[in-house]
Amino acid sequence: MLRQVDLSVELSKPAYKERMAKLQLTLGELQREARTLNIPIMLVFEGWDAAGKGTMINKLLMALDPRGFNVYSTNAPTEEERLRPFLWRFWIRVPARGRLAIFDRSWYGRVLGDRVDQKLPPSEWQRAYEEINAFERQMADDECVIVKFFLHIGKAEQKKRFKKLLKNPSTVWKVTSDDWRNHKQYRAYEKAVDDMIERTHTPWAAWTVVEAEDERFAAAKIFAAAISALQKKIAQVKAGKRASWKTLPRRHFTLSPPKSIDLSASLTKEEYEDQIEGLQKRFRDLEHRLYMYRVPLIVAYEGWDAAGKGGNIKRLVSRLDPRGYEVIPIAAPNDVEKSRHYLWRFWTHVPKAGHIAIFDRTWYGRVMVERVEGLCRPDEWQRAYNEINDMEAQFVDSGAVVVKFWLEIDKDVQLERFNERKNNPYKMWKITDEDWRNRKKWDLYRKAIDDMIRLTGTKRAPWTVIEANSKYYARIKTLRTVIAAVEKRLKEYE
Amino acid sequence: MLRQVDLSVELSKPAYKERMAKLQLTLGELQREARTLNIPIMLVFEGWDAAGKGTMINKLLMALDPRGFNVYSTNAPTEEERLRPFLWRFWIRVPARGRLAIFDRSWYGRVLGDRVDQKLPPSEWQRAYEEINAFERQMADDECVIVKFFLHIGKAEQKKRFKKLLKNPSTVWKVTSDDWRNHKQYRAYEKAVDDMIERTHTPWAAWTVVEAEDERFAAAKIFAAAISALQKKIAQVKAGKRASWKTLPRRHFTLSPPKSIDLSASLTKEEYEDQIEGLQKRFRDLEHRLYMYRVPLIVAYEGWDAAGKGGNIKRLVSRLDPRGYEVIPIAAPNDVEKSRHYLWRFWTHVPKAGHIAIFDRTWYGRVMVERVEGLCRPDEWQRAYNEINDMEAQFVDSGAVVVKFWLEIDKDVQLERFNERKNNPYKMWKITDEDWRNRKKWDLYRKAIDDMIRLTGTKRAPWTVIEANSKYYARIKTLRTVIAAVEKRLKEYE
Repeated sequence: MLRQVDLSVELSKPAYKERMAKLQLTLGELQREARTLNIPIMLVFEGWDAAGKGTMINKLLMALDPRGFNVYSTNAPTEEERLRPFLWRFWIRVPARGRLAIFDRSWYGRVLGDRVDQKLPPSEWQRAYEEINAFERQMADDECVIVKFFLHIGKAEQKKRFKKLLKNPSTVWKVTSDDWRNHKQYRAYEKAVDDMIERTHTPWAAWTVVEAEDERFAAAKIFAAAISALQKKIAQVKAGKRASWKTLPRRHFTLSPPKSIDLSASLTKEEYEDQIEGLQKRFRDLEHRLYMYRVPLIVAYEGWDAAGKGGNIKRLVSRLDPRGYEVIPIAAPNDVEKSRHYLWRFWTHVPKAGHIAIFDRTWYGRVMVERVEGLCRPDEWQRAYNEINDMEAQFVDSGAVVVKFWLEIDKDVQLERFNERKNNPYKMWKITDEDWRNRKKWDLYRKAIDDMIRLTGTKRAPWTVIEANSKYYARIKTLRTVIAAVEKRLKEYE
Repeated sequence: MLRQVDLSVELSKPAYKERMAKLQLTLGELQREARTLNIPIMLVFEGWDAAGKGTMINKLLMALDPRGFNVYSTNAPTEEERLRPFLWRFWIRVPARGRLAIFDRSWYGRVLGDRVDQKLPPSEWQRAYEEINAFERQMADDECVIVKFFLHIGKAEQKKRFKKLLKNPSTVWKVTSDDWRNHKQYRAYEKAVDDMIERTHTPWAAWTVVEAEDERFAAAKIFAAAISALQKKIAQVKAGKRASWKTLPRRHFTLSPPKSIDLSASLTKEEYEDQIEGLQKRFRDLEHRLYMYRVPLIVAYEGWDAAGKGGNIKRLVSRLDPRGYEVIPIAAPNDVEKSRHYLWRFWTHVPKAGHIAIFDRTWYGRVMVERVEGLCRPDEWQRAYNEINDMEAQFVDSGAVVVKFWLEIDKDVQLERFNERKNNPYKMWKITDEDWRNRKKWDLYRKAIDDMIRLTGTKRAPWTVIEANSKYYARIKTLRTVIAAVEKRLKEYE
C-alpha cells in the first residue's frame, strides 16, 4: 500500500498561497458551523518520525478558533495510564459535542510501535484492531466526525530530515536513539502501517495517506480532507439524517442464559451475623492480594429502588482499606457529562490495576431509565447492548474481574420499604417523588431489565441476580459472589 | 507538643457502641445538611505509619452517603504531578460545594516526609508552610470546612503494629523498608510534626491530635471533632454569616508601579513583516529550550474587547511545535467549574514543566467582569488580588516564567473595530451584543483594570501593558516581551 504512493507530488508556492487562503477560511467557517450543530470532531495524526506532524497540526490550528479545540500529544503511557485498558487515556479525551480534538499520534501506537518493537504479545496488538474499530464506531455512531491522516515520507527523506534537526542546537535533542532505531526498522514499520490501514480503514473512520515530502502539498491535502469530511457530516445533520453504515463488524459475545430465581431465599439475623464478619475479613485479605497482583476489580450494582443497594455496598466495603477501593455513585449526568458520549463518564472511573471500583448504579442506566423514560432514542439504547458488552470485554481483556449484580425484590416488598422510609425520620431523605413515579412503571422497567440481563449477560462479565427480599441473604450472597470471582482469578497467580 | 499527649486514654466497648451509634447518625445528618447548604468539606488525615488512618477513614465513610464524598490517597507524586507546583495535585481535587473530600495523607507530606528524608532543600519546605496556610485560607474563605487530624501512636506501639502486619501473609507487603526507616527516625519525625502543628494550626484550619493507640477512643474523637466543626459552620451559614478571621497571615508581594503608556506607538506593515518571522523562529527555538530545561511558561492575555487578543496569540504560536504549547480560552464557567473555588479551573490548566500555557483571558476575570457585572460579592473580588498574587507566586516558585499582557486600545479604536466586524461577513461571528453592553461600561472597567494592574503587578509576575491601537506594534511587542522573559530565565541554565 505505502509503496504505491507517489511521493514526488508537489504544490508550487503561488498555487499554495492562493489555495490555502480559501481552505483556511472554509475550515474556520465549518468549525463554527459544527459547533452550532453540536458535532464532535476527531482529527488523528500518525506518520513517520520527522514527517511534519507538528507543522501540519499547527497549520490547522491557525485556521481554527482556539475556543473550540484541544490538542493531545500521545507519548509513552504514564503509570496511571499503563494501569488501565489501553484505550482509557483516549476515551477520557474524546471531544465534547461541538468541539474538535486533535491527536498527535494516537491509539494506533498499539499496532505500530508496540507491535514492531514487540512490546506486546501478538495476541494483544491483534485484538487492538477490533477494539479500535469498535471505539471509533461508537464515536461515529454518536455523530462524531473522525478523520485519520498518515503522513508518509520515504526512508531517504527521513534520514535527511534527521540530519537537518541535528544541525540546529535547539533541535538536536529531538532526534533520539529511538528515532534512529525506528529509522533502521523502516521496512518493518511499513508493513505494520499497511496492515493498520487495511484493517482500520472503515466507512466511519477512513484513512487519508498524505504525501508529506512536500510540505505545501501535504498541508493542502490535509485541509481538503478535513473540509470534505466536515461538509459531508454537516449536510447530513442539516438534512436530519443520522450516521448509519451497512457493515457492522462487531465483536461476538457469548451470552449465558439467565437463571430463574427464588425470591423466598432468606437468612435469619443469627445466620447473617454468624457469617458476615468472616466474609468481610476474607474480602479485606483479597483486597490486599488484588493490590499485590495488580488485578483491578469492578463491581456493578443495579437493582430496583429500595432493593437495598446502599446498605449492601456498605457491608461489602466496611472492612476494606479505603486506599484500595472507591464507591462511585451514579446520578443523572451533569452538563459536562451530557455533552459527551454516554460511556465517557464511566471510562473516567475505570480503576487502576490493583484497585476496586464499586459502581452504585452504572452504564446500564442507558438501557433502563434512559430507555423507559425516553431520555435517549430507541436506536441509541438498542445499540447500547453491544457497546456495553464491548466496554466490559475491554475491562476483562485488560485484566479486570467484572462482577455485576441485579438486586431483585418483588413489588410488595418495595411498597413496604417505601412506606417504612416515608415514616422514619432518619430515612425520609431516601425516598423521593421520583421513586413513586418509577414504581408506577414497574412493568416497563421489568421488560427493560429482562432484556438487559439477556443481552449483556456475557460469559466473561456475567450478571448475578440477587434475591433481595431478605437484605441479610442479599448481603451474604453478594459478598460470597465477589469473593468467589476474585479467588477464581487469583488462582492464576498463586 | 506530641510528647505531652497522654496516649493511655481508652474507651470501653459498651460506651463506644452507645456513643458511636449516635455519632454516626449525627454525622450523616450533618453531611446531608451541608450538601443542602452547599458547604464544601475537607477532612485531612495525617499520622504515623500503622496509626490506623485507613480504619478511621472507613469508619467515617460508613456514616456518610457515598453520593457525597471522595477519598484521595496521597502517595509519592506521579511524573505528571512532580512537573507542577506541589499544591497542584491537591488543588485539582478540592471538593465541589456541598461535597466532602477526605485526604488520606495530604499536602503535609511536604513538611513531613519530604523534610525529614531531605528530599528538598530547607528553603522549599519552609516556604510550604506559607503556601499551605494560604491554600487552606483560600478554601476557608470560600466557606469550606477544614478539619485536620494527626493520628498519634508511640514508637513502641508502632513497632508492635508492624510486627502484627508481618504475621499475616496478606498484609506482609504493607510493611516496607521505608516504613522501618521512618520508624527508626521516629524522633526526627516527631520534631517535624511539632513544627507542622505549630505553624499550620490556624483558626480556619485547626489540627486535632488524636490519641490513636485505642481504636475506639480515636474513632469517637474523630467523629466528635468533625461533627463540631460542621455544626459550627452550618449554624454560621444559617445565620447568614460569612467566614471571617481576625488574623491575616498573608504573604507580602513587592509591587511594581505601572508605567505610563503612549497609545500612538505603531509599526507599518513593512516594519512588521521585516520582524515577525525572525521573532517567531526565535520563540520556536526557545520553546525547544524550555522543554530541554523543563521550564514552564505561562502567558496570560487580558485586554479590551477587540483589542486583538486572538490574532496576537495566533502570531505568538504560529511557528511553535503544538506538542509544546496549549492555548486555553477562558469563557464563562460551566456548572462543574461554578461549583468549585473560582481558581480551581485555572489550577487544572497549570502547564507541566517544559510546556507553555497561553491563557486567552484568565483568572483576572474575577476582578474585572465579575466585579463590574456583580457576579461576585465585593469582599470576594477584594480578596482576589491577594489570592491571585499568591497563586502566581506559587507558579514562579515552582520554576515557571509568568508573563501577563494587558492589551490597551482607546475607545475610538474599539468602536472602529466593532463596526468593521459587524460589516464583514467573515468576522461577524466575532461581535456579540455583550460586546456592545460591555462598551457602555467602559469607565467602570477602566477603574477595575487600573486597580488590577496596580494591585497584581508584582515583581516576579509583572504586567506588560501593550499599546494595541496598532495590531502590528502589539504583536511585535508581545513576542519581544515573551522572548526577553524566557531568555532571561534560561540564562540561569546556559
